[in-house]
Amino acid sequence: MVDILHRIGVKGSASAEVFAALTTTEGLAGWWTRDVSGGSGVGEVVAFRFPPVGGFDMRVLESEPGRRVVWEVVDGPPEWVGTRVSWDVRESDGWTVVLFAHSGWAEPVEFMHHCSTKWATFLMSLKGFVESGTGAPAPGDVVVSDWH
Amino acid sequence: MVDILHRIGVKGSASAEVFAALTTTEGLAGWWTRDVSGGSGVGEVVAFRFPPVGGFDMRVLESEPGRRVVWEVVDGPPEWVGTRVSWDVRESDGWTVVLFAHSGWAEPVEFMHHCSTKWATFLMSLKGFVESGTGAPAPGDVVVSDWH
Repeated sequence: MVDILHRIGVKGSASAEVFAALTTTEGLAGWWTRDVSGGSGVGEVVAFRFPPVGGFDMRVLESEPGRRVVWEVVDGPPEWVGTRVSWDVRESDGWTVVLFAHSGWAEPVEFMHHCSTKWATFLMSLKGFVESGTGAPAPGDVVVSDWH
Repeated sequence: MVDILHRIGVKGSASAEVFAALTTTEGLAGWWTRDVSGGSGVGEVVAFRFPPVGGFDMRVLESEPGRRVVWEVVDGPPEWVGTRVSWDVRESDGWTVVLFAHSGWAEPVEFMHHCSTKWATFLMSLKGFVESGTGAPAPGDVVVSDWH
């Protein structure tokens, strides 16, 4: 099992705003994809779509306000199904630190390399969205390669 | 042992340009840090500095023109020493694909999360540097957090 790991810092005491960006349709649409729907409470499924290439369905496993969110991928690319995406948030010295993990990949396939880079650009999008209100969600997301 | 993995695509048939960006002082200064010195042939050591916080010394283990470069970290933060950084380059359908690995981390510490995100921004800097001549090397690099 291999994991994708990232860490960003959002300026200011923004754990509530980061949590909202991870747990509301409006927030998620501000940095990941405009095409998001479904519920975001524990046990509910959030559907993220990236037309025309498909998307991911995430079941919310944990949702602790201002601190932690965990999703399990229940539908999407075969490499993703069964993996987990976790977000740990804390405030420290005027920053809001977000530790990210997309864990449980079966193999370090080339698609995992791609997703690691792509997650970084979406995390930077999340940072920009919370800091300034301007993210780069799909379909206006950052192009990292031929795989978009 | 855990690894940081990334994948970018540079537009065009640019494997020679990517290789030059990884193996010449001028190239490395265009996307990673302006403060780079040393030799870049196999067995030589390249010194990357990020004033005022330190840097990394990399011994070149492999250098296969247009295809592959491998460095071993011989000095720097303790978590980095002994790890390896590899770059695999190939051209495919009008793109130059770069597979990156920073492998051999002893533990998935928080600093590794940070380095993963930071590597992604430097890979995007490499992409920009080769595609358009404009990278974002230190000290003008992208700030991802309180750890810079």
